[in-house]
Amino acid sequence: MSFTVYLSGEIHTDWRDEIIEGANKQKLNIHFTSAITNHEASDAAGDMLNHTGNDDNNSFWRDHKSAKVNAIRTKSLIENCDLMIVRFGEQYKQWNAAFDAGYCAAMATPYITLHTEDIIHPLKEVDAASLAWAKTTDQVIEILSYVCKQ
Amino acid sequence: MSFTVYLSGEIHTDWRDEIIEGANKQKLNIHFTSAITNHEASDAAGDMLNHTGNDDNNSFWRDHKSAKVNAIRTKSLIENCDLMIVRFGEQYKQWNAAFDAGYCAAMATPYITLHTEDIIHPLKEVDAASLAWAKTTDQVIEILSYVCKQ
Amino acid sequence: MSFTVYLSGEIHTDWRDEIIEGANKQKLNIHFTSAITNHEASDAAGDMLNHTGNDDNNSFWRDHKSAKVNAIRTKSLIENCDLMIVRFGEQYKQWNAAFDAGYCAAMATPYITLHTEDIIHPLKEVDAASLAWAKTTDQVIEILSYVCKQ
Amino acid sequence: MSFTVYLSGEIHTDWRDEIIEGANKQKLNIHFTSAITNHEASDAAGDMLNHTGNDDNNSFWRDHKSAKVNAIRTKSLIENCDLMIVRFGEQYKQWNAAFDAGYCAAMATPYITLHTEDIIHPLKEVDAASLAWAKTTDQVIEILSYVCKQ
Amino acid sequence: MSFTVYLSGEIHTDWRDEIIEGANKQKLNIHFTSAITNHEASDAAGDMLNHTGNDDNNSFWRDHKSAKVNAIRTKSLIENCDLMIVRFGEQYKQWNAAFDAGYCAAMATPYITLHTEDIIHPLKEVDAASLAWAKTTDQVIEILSYVCKQ
Amino acid sequence: MSFTVYLSGEIHTDWRDEIIEGANKQKLNIHFTSAITNHEASDAAGDMLNHTGNDDNNSFWRDHKSAKVNAIRTKSLIENCDLMIVRFGEQYKQWNAAFDAGYCAAMATPYITLHTEDIIHPLKEVDAASLAWAKTTDQVIEILSYVCKQ
Amino acid sequence: MSFTVYLSGEIHTDWRDEIIEGANKQKLNIHFTSAITNHEASDAAGDMLNHTGNDDNNSFWRDHKSAKVNAIRTKSLIENCDLMIVRFGEQYKQWNAAFDAGYCAAMATPYITLHTEDIIHPLKEVDAASLAWAKTTDQVIEILSYVCKQ
Amino acid sequence: MSFTVYLSGEIHTDWRDEIIEGANKQKLNIHFTSAITNHEASDAAGDMLNHTGNDDNNSFWRDHKSAKVNAIRTKSLIENCDLMIVRFGEQYKQWNAAFDAGYCAAMATPYITLHTEDIIHPLKEVDAASLAWAKTTDQVIEILSYVCKQ
Repeated sequence: MSFTVYLSGEIHTDWRDEIIEGANKQKLNIHFTSAITNHEASDAAGDMLNHTGNDDNNSFWRDHKSAKVNAIRTKSLIENCDLMIVRFGEQYKQWNAAFDAGYCAAMATPYITLHTEDIIHPLKEVDAASLAWAKTTDQVIEILSYVCKQ
Repeated sequence: MSFTVYLSGEIHTDWRDEIIEGANKQKLNIHFTSAITNHEASDAAGDMLNHTGNDDNNSFWRDHKSAKVNAIRTKSLIENCDLMIVRFGEQYKQWNAAFDAGYCAAMATPYITLHTEDIIHPLKEVDAASLAWAKTTDQVIEILSYVCKQ
Repeated sequence: MSFTVYLSGEIHTDWRDEIIEGANKQKLNIHFTSAITNHEASDAAGDMLNHTGNDDNNSFWRDHKSAKVNAIRTKSLIENCDLMIVRFGEQYKQWNAAFDAGYCAAMATPYITLHTEDIIHPLKEVDAASLAWAKTTDQVIEILSYVCKQ
Repeated sequence: MSFTVYLSGEIHTDWRDEIIEGANKQKLNIHFTSAITNHEASDAAGDMLNHTGNDDNNSFWRDHKSAKVNAIRTKSLIENCDLMIVRFGEQYKQWNAAFDAGYCAAMATPYITLHTEDIIHPLKEVDAASLAWAKTTDQVIEILSYVCKQ
Repeated sequence: MSFTVYLSGEIHTDWRDEIIEGANKQKLNIHFTSAITNHEASDAAGDMLNHTGNDDNNSFWRDHKSAKVNAIRTKSLIENCDLMIVRFGEQYKQWNAAFDAGYCAAMATPYITLHTEDIIHPLKEVDAASLAWAKTTDQVIEILSYVCKQ
Repeated sequence: MSFTVYLSGEIHTDWRDEIIEGANKQKLNIHFTSAITNHEASDAAGDMLNHTGNDDNNSFWRDHKSAKVNAIRTKSLIENCDLMIVRFGEQYKQWNAAFDAGYCAAMATPYITLHTEDIIHPLKEVDAASLAWAKTTDQVIEILSYVCKQ
Repeated sequence: MSFTVYLSGEIHTDWRDEIIEGANKQKLNIHFTSAITNHEASDAAGDMLNHTGNDDNNSFWRDHKSAKVNAIRTKSLIENCDLMIVRFGEQYKQWNAAFDAGYCAAMATPYITLHTEDIIHPLKEVDAASLAWAKTTDQVIEILSYVCKQ
Repeated sequence: MSFTVYLSGEIHTDWRDEIIEGANKQKLNIHFTSAITNHEASDAAGDMLNHTGNDDNNSFWRDHKSAKVNAIRTKSLIENCDLMIVRFGEQYKQWNAAFDAGYCAAMATPYITLHTEDIIHPLKEVDAASLAWAKTTDQVIEILSYVCKQ
């Protein structure tokens, strides 16, 4: 059985690499996808579109253009995945991660949340619509290994 | 023209009342809906379901049951609204608000974000999929008044 | 807030009446729907369709015709409900109840299961896709009362 | 013509192997998929997720976690199959099999039921929405051979 | 329980009136809809659209325009019905009736076929996707009466 | 039979009024809807949203905000109509009218085009997906009168 | 550009072979699919399912079983095609062909009709929802050649 | 990451070639698709279908047949693309380009507009539903390069 798994959320720790390496070690037939995870590149994704005058100095519209260019990629990848892993970390607002979870919930795409115990309460709606809550990347790898068994 | 508008997000300020009163003053033909906004009642929504043994002392499962009971209401209301206003406030994680926005985005239900300028950057993905970003409830009321014109 | 609630499953106890009366007492704005719950009438629902020769003596085709005539009603009602309560009782196979639950799961229609503790294990897949598991009709009424609050 | 066929239901007899071998003998271009059919592994599928405290001793939540981990696999496989064969055996409740049938019915995915004559009556709703009722695995193989003809 | 029932097919006998009268006698809460059943008016439905030059003398395009004007009505009514009754009579090709049945099948809208025994074989695909085959309008009325019971 | 008809396109002639009056004269049970047709108000629809600094002097973003505020209204109305009449006039680009037609085509919502003969060629794709091409508002009224017959 | 084309309708002339050969000669990248076109095999498709007693002598149920077994194949092929060619011949009722056309219309799958001039009138609804009416297989091949151009 | 990109709109400049060459130079894994861009061939696409009498001299029906034959190709390609680039040039009505944009908007398929500043205002609705507005093919290539990064 092959699977396409989208990795959403936190970009400041190496949880993506841990999962990908763990899956590779077990030779799971999984194709991992992701947004562009380079923070600076992502923030600048729309900068080539210098619309009119000095809008590039305008933070709302700069963010607006970049978020939409990023959405070209993420929307396609999320709609084509079989499963999403969504990671919530220790800091930052991470509203885009919760947004992705809501998107999957509405599409009936299964997702797994990955977060520590101390943020159970604010994530209760996100967890309630998920198919699993994992606390460690090892748990995620174990789940992937199980669901991909021949 | 009549509209059903779901009010999502922050529950600690009176932004919902301001919008509802403003719409009423203008006699707009709008039906407003919302989650249960009483924080304690919402957290306890699943407490009547004492599943087995002492699970009610277990915070993950208590939250899980309550979030799902709340979802019976919110899922129906969100799927039946014509427009969502989603408010992000000064504090709290508010991942459920971002989750609702993602849900609307996937359903192609229009939504308006309501937040101050200082959180433009972390909300860029949520704003990018919205049809308007308002900074004040007055702006929201003005939009509602405009779109509901005969 | 008004709701349409479909009551699926066991037809040999009065759980439907208990829920309807409980909701009425609390003046909840709920419209309850249901399959035809008269067992004999339901089994005979297709008997007017004497297709060819003596097929009415043939149990597979008699059941087939009746199940389809019943489906005209149940399919419409299930697709038009906001919430399903599905009851599993002490006896009988009740595969139609589990079938209805699977139907709702695929349609993303919320449902609540109603059953005692001793059948948790065989119902685990049905419970996993539900938004609540209730053990008593009182719990169901309490949930309905909560989700229909103004 | 190639086909993906999901084999749902009873896990205590070797009906899956019979169908797969029969199809192989006839060199049918069919890819068979299935849930994890090892009963113990399936029941323990969520055990790696030790959520909080001693919930693993709590049968409802243990079942809940495992059923959801299994759903990651089965939901994907069912939504990607062209045809489901669903087997109802002599014993056990097998509500998950009826649940899968309801899921397919709502998705308009064709399915074939496989069961003996003595359970025609309780399966009448499940049979009514199927495209064939087979009594033996030989009949199933004959159908597969027919529908996959060049 | 209320129902919207679309009456499709044969326009040269009074089967529609029989069903409507029968339902009225039993005070069933059914709203009946239908294409324009006046044959001449239906054939001339697009004649007001004298596109260019003498195309009205051109039978293909005359039929084309009229069929599309009729489709404005029938498409809406079929998509808004809960149930279709489709009648196949003794003569004429009646491909539009079979077309309507295929349309309902794809939309998963339940339908009942109404025809005599002598055309069972050519209608086998149409009957296979229906929820009932009736031979008389009395049988149809009996079904409607059953499925609309309180 | 009642109908909701959305009137899209040209805002500089009184074709909307002609159709509405014609339908009223014939007492057709039609509810007409429309975008805000006041050109200046429409262009200024997002001006209350003074996002950051002097973006209101920036024509792209001013148009962007206004077009989205207008979309809150038009998207809802188009998705809720049974039929669209889309008018192409003598001047202006009118890309929004063609955009609305494409939107309806993808949603399988029937629409009628209203335009003179001299723009048949550039409108051929838009006409090809329509259910009728009318040259005059009288023809439109005649179609509406026909499709709404009891 | 590659295409999957389903060939529906008449099974008593060699129009399928003509189209396939014509496409092959032009080396078009088209995969053709079809129902089982052997009339006797098709009528007997469900005969292996001897349900109960002597139902195989009962023409309605024999047809019913066979039509459903055939539907396992045709439903999958039709839902997976990019284009359907549907042929109406000189004789037989051919309601299944019109049924397939209605099915495609509801799914928004493009189809081409293939028939002579003398049955324009009874096919007007089927033609109205098609993207082309061809009178000869040569015309069909010419269309296929055009739409598959690099 | 691989992508299928549909190139819609203007056929009188070489913007398609510029984008394809730019993507090739960067070895992006993109499959580009397009309507038939030979103007004369496109206008004549339905000419082989000489329906009845002298309709080929009739401009509306000639355009009608050709537009529908072209739609067989374009509808498939648009529904199968991950992203559309839609180009609006200096001249011509280009309503088919705006129609394609509306089609994508309703299907929630991302698209990028490509046009100069002088037509911002008439394209505001089309731009409002897009994920980016580019002024040059270089900007488009830069976006494609970004969203296809490994």
